[in-house]
Amino acid sequence: MDLALHPVTEAGVRFTKLIEDLAPAFAARAAQHDRDGTFPSENFAELRAAGLLSACVPERFGGMGLESLHDLTVGINRLGRADAATAIASQMHIAAGWQFARAWRNAMAVGDPRLAEIEALLSWYATGGIVLCVAGTEPGAAHGFPLTTAERCPDGWRVHGRKCFATNSTIADLFVVYVRIPAGGGDRIGLAFVTRETPGVEVQHNWDALGMRASGSNDVTFDCVVGEPMVMEVGSWGALDRFWLTYYTAGNIALLGAFLGCAEAARDVVVEMARTRRRAPGMRLVAERPAVQNAVAGIEIALAACRAMLARTCLVADELFAERLTDDSDLGELHQLMQLFVCTKQFVNRQAIDAVDLALTASGGAGYLAASPLSRLYRDVRAGPFMQPYSPLEAGEYIGKVALGLDPVVDH
Amino acid sequence: MDLALHPVTEAGVRFTKLIEDLAPAFAARAAQHDRDGTFPSENFAELRAAGLLSACVPERFGGMGLESLHDLTVGINRLGRADAATAIASQMHIAAGWQFARAWRNAMAVGDPRLAEIEALLSWYATGGIVLCVAGTEPGAAHGFPLTTAERCPDGWRVHGRKCFATNSTIADLFVVYVRIPAGGGDRIGLAFVTRETPGVEVQHNWDALGMRASGSNDVTFDCVVGEPMVMEVGSWGALDRFWLTYYTAGNIALLGAFLGCAEAARDVVVEMARTRRRAPGMRLVAERPAVQNAVAGIEIALAACRAMLARTCLVADELFAERLTDDSDLGELHQLMQLFVCTKQFVNRQAIDAVDLALTASGGAGYLAASPLSRLYRDVRAGPFMQPYSPLEAGEYIGKVALGLDPVVDH
Amino acid sequence: MDLALHPVTEAGVRFTKLIEDLAPAFAARAAQHDRDGTFPSENFAELRAAGLLSACVPERFGGMGLESLHDLTVGINRLGRADAATAIASQMHIAAGWQFARAWRNAMAVGDPRLAEIEALLSWYATGGIVLCVAGTEPGAAHGFPLTTAERCPDGWRVHGRKCFATNSTIADLFVVYVRIPAGGGDRIGLAFVTRETPGVEVQHNWDALGMRASGSNDVTFDCVVGEPMVMEVGSWGALDRFWLTYYTAGNIALLGAFLGCAEAARDVVVEMARTRRRAPGMRLVAERPAVQNAVAGIEIALAACRAMLARTCLVADELFAERLTDDSDLGELHQLMQLFVCTKQFVNRQAIDAVDLALTASGGAGYLAASPLSRLYRDVRAGPFMQPYSPLEAGEYIGKVALGLDPVVDH
Amino acid sequence: MDLALHPVTEAGVRFTKLIEDLAPAFAARAAQHDRDGTFPSENFAELRAAGLLSACVPERFGGMGLESLHDLTVGINRLGRADAATAIASQMHIAAGWQFARAWRNAMAVGDPRLAEIEALLSWYATGGIVLCVAGTEPGAAHGFPLTTAERCPDGWRVHGRKCFATNSTIADLFVVYVRIPAGGGDRIGLAFVTRETPGVEVQHNWDALGMRASGSNDVTFDCVVGEPMVMEVGSWGALDRFWLTYYTAGNIALLGAFLGCAEAARDVVVEMARTRRRAPGMRLVAERPAVQNAVAGIEIALAACRAMLARTCLVADELFAERLTDDSDLGELHQLMQLFVCTKQFVNRQAIDAVDLALTASGGAGYLAASPLSRLYRDVRAGPFMQPYSPLEAGEYIGKVALGLDPVVDH
Repeated sequence: MDLALHPVTEAGVRFTKLIEDLAPAFAARAAQHDRDGTFPSENFAELRAAGLLSACVPERFGGMGLESLHDLTVGINRLGRADAATAIASQMHIAAGWQFARAWRNAMAVGDPRLAEIEALLSWYATGGIVLCVAGTEPGAAHGFPLTTAERCPDGWRVHGRKCFATNSTIADLFVVYVRIPAGGGDRIGLAFVTRETPGVEVQHNWDALGMRASGSNDVTFDCVVGEPMVMEVGSWGALDRFWLTYYTAGNIALLGAFLGCAEAARDVVVEMARTRRRAPGMRLVAERPAVQNAVAGIEIALAACRAMLARTCLVADELFAERLTDDSDLGELHQLMQLFVCTKQFVNRQAIDAVDLALTASGGAGYLAASPLSRLYRDVRAGPFMQPYSPLEAGEYIGKVALGLDPVVDH
Repeated sequence: MDLALHPVTEAGVRFTKLIEDLAPAFAARAAQHDRDGTFPSENFAELRAAGLLSACVPERFGGMGLESLHDLTVGINRLGRADAATAIASQMHIAAGWQFARAWRNAMAVGDPRLAEIEALLSWYATGGIVLCVAGTEPGAAHGFPLTTAERCPDGWRVHGRKCFATNSTIADLFVVYVRIPAGGGDRIGLAFVTRETPGVEVQHNWDALGMRASGSNDVTFDCVVGEPMVMEVGSWGALDRFWLTYYTAGNIALLGAFLGCAEAARDVVVEMARTRRRAPGMRLVAERPAVQNAVAGIEIALAACRAMLARTCLVADELFAERLTDDSDLGELHQLMQLFVCTKQFVNRQAIDAVDLALTASGGAGYLAASPLSRLYRDVRAGPFMQPYSPLEAGEYIGKVALGLDPVVDH
Repeated sequence: MDLALHPVTEAGVRFTKLIEDLAPAFAARAAQHDRDGTFPSENFAELRAAGLLSACVPERFGGMGLESLHDLTVGINRLGRADAATAIASQMHIAAGWQFARAWRNAMAVGDPRLAEIEALLSWYATGGIVLCVAGTEPGAAHGFPLTTAERCPDGWRVHGRKCFATNSTIADLFVVYVRIPAGGGDRIGLAFVTRETPGVEVQHNWDALGMRASGSNDVTFDCVVGEPMVMEVGSWGALDRFWLTYYTAGNIALLGAFLGCAEAARDVVVEMARTRRRAPGMRLVAERPAVQNAVAGIEIALAACRAMLARTCLVADELFAERLTDDSDLGELHQLMQLFVCTKQFVNRQAIDAVDLALTASGGAGYLAASPLSRLYRDVRAGPFMQPYSPLEAGEYIGKVALGLDPVVDH
Repeated sequence: MDLALHPVTEAGVRFTKLIEDLAPAFAARAAQHDRDGTFPSENFAELRAAGLLSACVPERFGGMGLESLHDLTVGINRLGRADAATAIASQMHIAAGWQFARAWRNAMAVGDPRLAEIEALLSWYATGGIVLCVAGTEPGAAHGFPLTTAERCPDGWRVHGRKCFATNSTIADLFVVYVRIPAGGGDRIGLAFVTRETPGVEVQHNWDALGMRASGSNDVTFDCVVGEPMVMEVGSWGALDRFWLTYYTAGNIALLGAFLGCAEAARDVVVEMARTRRRAPGMRLVAERPAVQNAVAGIEIALAACRAMLARTCLVADELFAERLTDDSDLGELHQLMQLFVCTKQFVNRQAIDAVDLALTASGGAGYLAASPLSRLYRDVRAGPFMQPYSPLEAGEYIGKVALGLDPVVDH
């Protein structure tokens, strides 16, 4: 009986298997990239070679046809066990494929005039030749309220602003930038597609953090012009509309697999240690100490709870997204789903942190040494709560408001 | 989107629906039975009339054919929302039906010489005319090590000892008593089937506890003789064998549904309160207070986690039990399942307690009054960790030992 | 080395000693009063006979001259170990004496024209012949914003409104009622002194709660007229002024001693149980089980932390109040003190709850029976967070605002 | 009102003041030493120049005469706020001075034949010219059971073994090595005084850890010979005798001040941030967000509890050690003190970790960047539980056994 998460679709089985083949090599490189803060470009090259970077692209565009967010999460989970930074970085890219595919299917179904553009984007992405950086977060602005602007100009759009925590920016070929589009009847929010070579794009190469050091999450500044079709309006600035709820959920939920993976890796380290080490004067196995058994029990409970909750939430999302196009979906249901996701995110992130902490305790000091993977896991796993959407500073309010039937806009 | 637990089999759908029909009446009686410590006999009468007491009996014996432990848990969950004492009391009876049905299928498959006896027992139970009390717990003895003895005597067996926490004993017609059978090559463990009318059976009618006051969990003393076929040997005294692991898991897992139900009921009370009450000087809805939103968020997270974990564990059990007969099953797998169950039990029991506590906090004092259901829920839900198998004093050791690959016998 | 709290002043030593002499009798009566919800009048009679009801009255008025809030807390702690309901009920009365004495000293020092009235009140109270009920809490109103009104009328003041959680009201001779005094330039807050015999005062005798069942905390309705000097204006309605901060801190801080007492009593029950009981099959002492040792360790840590924090906070209060009269005191310092008190209240109340919960766990089920003191302690100790000032729903905001240098008014 | 810890003796006031003068410079150097893993030798030079390295030496030997462990803790707390690695490193050296002074007073009082040797050692130490490394911990051995041996040889003693976590070893002039002395009637434990220049002493310069990176806690190997007087027998191997309990408590208790300092520093960072930053779209101060207020409240509660508990425990230790010489002291009392210390250690270490975690949460992501002090504090503060005596894997057992009246030897 293997109680870990397992894929439920055929594409998911292939996806997970390919990742499991690559994972040992990624794990072997993790410590060095962490120490040096270097981006694991060779991991991305191997992911690309295996077709994994375009996993969510429909097969007719040459992808793997992975549609299940549950199975995407499973694959990212396997990466998370090996190298959490690679896991979140590649998730940012791969989940964007899911979003493009969804946008394409949506556009076809509703006869969206932007269909050709979306198809072109999907085709380009599908080649697997590019790496994406989704640049959403900004210093000093709540999510959903980007201050980076896109304003019309003679040659298309002028994009201006600064993004931070822009994962993948070290090597990204294309930036998907959340922008504010000033407009008369209320500002709009949009996506600007900006290639790396565009004059005025500057990756600051300043990523240096407690953990996730190999994720290339630099600041990026934009003061550039892009062509007319490269900015796509998607809703009202700051609005929790269908687009936002759908794409924000789908674009981030698989990240939780990475943090679960950290906890699983920590568990394995400490179980292995406890089953092989002995200590004077009693020389019994460390595993035989009741306090170690209790710490391991705490980890086991956390893992079982996280796996179950993550699986259930992903399957609920899969079901909802399979049933309805974005434009058809019920706003209330999308908030229910987002609420469930945010509950899951709060829970999994915190339990994963606590599980790694327990593993550190059970290691008896050995895990505190830089040479131990526990030392890296302890730093990496702490990134979870900061990731979008809804940090711990906002989650309680959002979850509570949905449950209480209030307008779920967080008070900023 | 209803994110509560829902049945997955047809029999489960019927089972749950019938319970949902009865639940409002049970809820209406709960406060009085709690206050007086009286047994909800009228609830049992209604459960019997609806055929629910023999839910797990195969249809050919006249039952509902409910085989899924997941769905049994769902039904008990609905009872738990209404009246937790009725929920656990009826679960003890209904799950015994699952065990009899399993024993019967097992005996048929392996050609067990006791088949006729098991079939007779099942038929008797299937009439729905009797209520069972499984008398396992004893003062001063760890589970699996009963001190109550069954010893051969001229007329069959002499049963002697004292049981406590014997739920349903107030009205039970038949006691299923875990006994020690002294034997030369190591004591055996057995089940003694003792009818209420047997001379020497005395229900002490002394149940008076913090909560679950309507569960009739009295002490029962036995100093009686039963006929030869009424004692069935099932294994070695204190051994964690196939029988023990199978029947102990199946007989108790649905109890968790009752405790989840307590937490769900508490959540509903506090959400309703927050959406309707206002407070001077601001006179805004209580729901609009950030601290209330946070408390409700905490409850929501706990509920979502408990539901997912409980569902997943039950489905794993269903799958394992569907695949294999008890005699075929792999001991290691049964320990994995038991470990998963114990993880789930520890987690759900504690989270349910914490969720009710949060609801009490969010109630702002109103919930502390005896007239509030929260006051009862706070007491009832605290019973969870004491229920079998594996209390919090033993769970860490068992879980840890299984995870660490040690012999999972708890050190008593 | 006795690490419990001990008095630091001579009056405190006498106070504590007298209480310790009475406590065993109170403990013996606790279960019955809890079960029946009766007020422990005989305990109050014994407290009166020992001079304890006027402990905080200056010696020149016939009291014990107890000025130290630390030592008041120590005495209440000893009562809390024996019977928490008696502890909080008598604290409400005894701490009022501290307040009267302070008001009297303050009035003398500043030449307050109300000196004669205050002195008369103090003298009356000092006889020990009366029991006070401080009626502050109201359904539907935040603390500091009473809706009960006192309005001038030909014969003095008309007092109208409803109070709840009015501890001691079962037997109280005098109600000290927080009232709103409507006024042109902004409502005022005042204290109305209303004797029990006043026509229009009705004690509802409806106290029936989860715990603290012997505290007589009924609703009381007022629709009555009192004479001119019986209403004393003390500040602006809803304002956190010097009076409020001083009297609210001093009037309630010793309550924490009662909740610490619950935790200490629970610890003693479980240590005693663990040191004397054995369990089959191993028959070793329960105390020898690692899980029991760990649970007891958790209680020990909680007790040591609560004692230290409670002692330190009380001594800070004693020092501040000794240095300054209410009218001289610095508003910022009073907020610092109140913040420290609220931190201590949050902490001690929660840790005490958790400690009793751990004791219940360590009891292995025995504590869940109504016959066990743990069962009562579990219900009594849960009252703590609801007591004034600042419930858990308000405490985070108040503490945070003080720390962050914001106006510390809680947003209602 | 400054509610931080403050010294209670005159020597403590001077000690604390001198440290507060140096602290800003230490704080300024902390980030660089952390990043590079270099030892803060310049800090030690400044501590020496200020006379602080011999703070605990009696004035007649040229020291500051600091006897109060409470005040030692206060000074180390100030260092901890500035640079936790310097705090623990200097504590290891300074507390050794307290131990030497105690040993000297003890030897004088009882006429110990080793008085001259102790006095010589104290005099040498008192010059302030040397830095000490207390080498106690070993890989694979529980505390109190060193495997490093000292065996008699023609030139004195042969010392052989490996120590780890040997703080200060980067620059230490003298190693105080806990050794096992094989003996007929049961092994003895002793201290070997080994100078750095001794042939066969090798500092491995391999310290590289998650945090406390500037503490120079390398492995050190010994295969050397020291003269006869350089090994001092102090008790039985593995015994919890008077010597062990006294010196282990006194030698480590002030370390807790460093971890409290981490939490205090984190609190200050986050309060400062919240009071100055604003965020789009609302542009209100971060401090005005309820979730931030709650996080800060959590930190405030933790700090208040830690300060109170740490102060109370240190004062209990001061009182006990002032009353009695080591040889006179009651073993039961020493266990009570050690138990109180271990409770305090468990509590302060965990609360400090949680407080820094809350600060990270409240920082909203900014604290996760390496440039933020929070990022270092998060790593440094996690060292606490690993420090001696009694890790979380042993503490529950020890605390519980003392409370339960069992022989408090931890089962190894």
